[in-house]
Amino acid sequence: MNMLVDGEWRTDAYQSTNEDGEFDRQETSFRDRIRASPRDAEQSSGDEPRDEDDPDARFQPEAGRYHLYVSKACPWAHRTLLVRALKGLEDAISVDVVDPFRDEGGWQFTPEKAGCTEDSLYGSDYLRELYVEADPDMTGRVTVPVLWDKQEETIVNNESKEILRMLDTEFDGVAEHDVDLYPEGYREEVDRIIEDIYEPINNGVYRSGFADTQTAYDNAVSELFDALDHWDQVLEDQRYLAGDRLTEADICMFTTLVRFDEVYHTHFMCNHKLIREYDNLWPYLRDLYQTPGVAGTVNMDHIKEHYYTTHPDVSPKRIVPMGPDPDFEAPHDRDELPGEPPADLLATA
Amino acid sequence: MNMLVDGEWRTDAYQSTNEDGEFDRQETSFRDRIRASPRDAEQSSGDEPRDEDDPDARFQPEAGRYHLYVSKACPWAHRTLLVRALKGLEDAISVDVVDPFRDEGGWQFTPEKAGCTEDSLYGSDYLRELYVEADPDMTGRVTVPVLWDKQEETIVNNESKEILRMLDTEFDGVAEHDVDLYPEGYREEVDRIIEDIYEPINNGVYRSGFADTQTAYDNAVSELFDALDHWDQVLEDQRYLAGDRLTEADICMFTTLVRFDEVYHTHFMCNHKLIREYDNLWPYLRDLYQTPGVAGTVNMDHIKEHYYTTHPDVSPKRIVPMGPDPDFEAPHDRDELPGEPPADLLATA
Repeated sequence: MNMLVDGEWRTDAYQSTNEDGEFDRQETSFRDRIRASPRDAEQSSGDEPRDEDDPDARFQPEAGRYHLYVSKACPWAHRTLLVRALKGLEDAISVDVVDPFRDEGGWQFTPEKAGCTEDSLYGSDYLRELYVEADPDMTGRVTVPVLWDKQEETIVNNESKEILRMLDTEFDGVAEHDVDLYPEGYREEVDRIIEDIYEPINNGVYRSGFADTQTAYDNAVSELFDALDHWDQVLEDQRYLAGDRLTEADICMFTTLVRFDEVYHTHFMCNHKLIREYDNLWPYLRDLYQTPGVAGTVNMDHIKEHYYTTHPDVSPKRIVPMGPDPDFEAPHDRDELPGEPPADLLATA
Repeated sequence: MNMLVDGEWRTDAYQSTNEDGEFDRQETSFRDRIRASPRDAEQSSGDEPRDEDDPDARFQPEAGRYHLYVSKACPWAHRTLLVRALKGLEDAISVDVVDPFRDEGGWQFTPEKAGCTEDSLYGSDYLRELYVEADPDMTGRVTVPVLWDKQEETIVNNESKEILRMLDTEFDGVAEHDVDLYPEGYREEVDRIIEDIYEPINNGVYRSGFADTQTAYDNAVSELFDALDHWDQVLEDQRYLAGDRLTEADICMFTTLVRFDEVYHTHFMCNHKLIREYDNLWPYLRDLYQTPGVAGTVNMDHIKEHYYTTHPDVSPKRIVPMGPDPDFEAPHDRDELPGEPPADLLATA
């Protein structure tokens, strides 16, 4: 598979499974942080003078300065679109959307295709050009999401859970909604859940589908369904993963669950159960989907096209199946449980 | 893909799709008939002297004369095992079972594997040897089921619905159960249903899974689910496809339905709905499964291994998924509808 090696595009450089046939996700490369100074966060302005000696001073939250490159197919990129929508950061942070079909050249810009855009900053053909722009000697995978700094013309970060956290906690000065997805008193629990669901669920569907051996598959898929069973139980008595508050943990769970029945169940052979067969996960998924701002971030056409046409080692015919077309708009009754979506979001509905 | 050409085994001779990317199933090759003389059928003996001028005289129904070569994975072969079990022909007609994994050599005998047998007649390694024995110049696919005549040492027939019919209607003289799956008064309807469900359902799952183009897939899978919806409606008010009698039509439907959730839904991307999501097809499937004699013909391990490991153009990793493990033994309440299984079968339970 393809990756950048010392800034050169190589189509055979990336080995996605280890010697036991297990999917081995490569670490992301850019891990800088945007941090609001305490004063910024309090005063909600974001354009105060900064202390040049402050290590956090390089990337400050500002409206209009940052840009997201995403795929609407990708669950990791989807996290960043969700927090952007929930916080009301659409005007503050611009977005370009790549083609859901990823060919040998990697993610690309095909503005003629429905739901896709050009690279509005540079007019690039391929996303990899931005990676080389940010680091001419870059070695690593070219992935979405990318959080781009228009001022320094570089990548701030390409690790979804860090971008999610930054957009959630550092942009209150420019966000249109008073929404806090990492609230005091819940933070330890949110961090724990995000960590707990990553390997068995978020990455688990990939570990199942990309496994090269029966043993690697069996282990991954067992862990996946054990974890889904566990969280289905947890959600019996509470509306959200961390209790009565919608948090980043729900965002991380949502982007996997919303793809599950259409893609992971069939394409990645996670076919022990469908999410719509779970007593609590299914209404929980509908509840999240119906939260103001969420549905607009879901592009099921991009999701289906991407997976089924981009992984010939899994689906060599590149045919997009009919799919179950789950009714995410069906009533869910989860509002009988303690907790509700952030009031400021409900006001926008 | 492989087939015999003038008696030679060729691994690249068979083109399974046409120029539009549609799966094109080749006709079966051996179409002789076993026919009971009217006297045989009446007197239940099967060893009366025969008129040599009678064109039906060549293959007469006799206990011990015929042999079935089957795969327990194959839905077509499964039909013949079902009628053999329902009629009580186990002692009259012997059976050998091939390996569910079909390699470049085609179906083979691997007696060391669970649920498989040797070729008890000739000790062959591959089923194709029997085809060449029957016709040294044979050109065509080597398929199961095969109805073999031990007396003439040849293939009588390898077309499942014809073998099904012969075992059902011509062997009453040697059958242990008084079971008629093609009853007078229902025959036209049974023939019509078998014909009606073949293309959209029995062959439709293959046409969906083996389609090489999106259009071919879309057409096949739409026809499949339209047909399933239709028969689900029909089964709302009647216990069996042809009404209140268990018939050959139910056998033909059963072998596709019982494989659906474990295999066709995922492997052949027939993922719009599961059979267990249908209001009537799902209890109907359980009803048939719980009919005395039926469950013993179902080998889900062979079914899963076969499909997922034998079609690398569909599932290249050859990994067998976890699967839903449907509970075919769950109560079905179909006995509230008019009709019941043949009394003689219920007596065996």
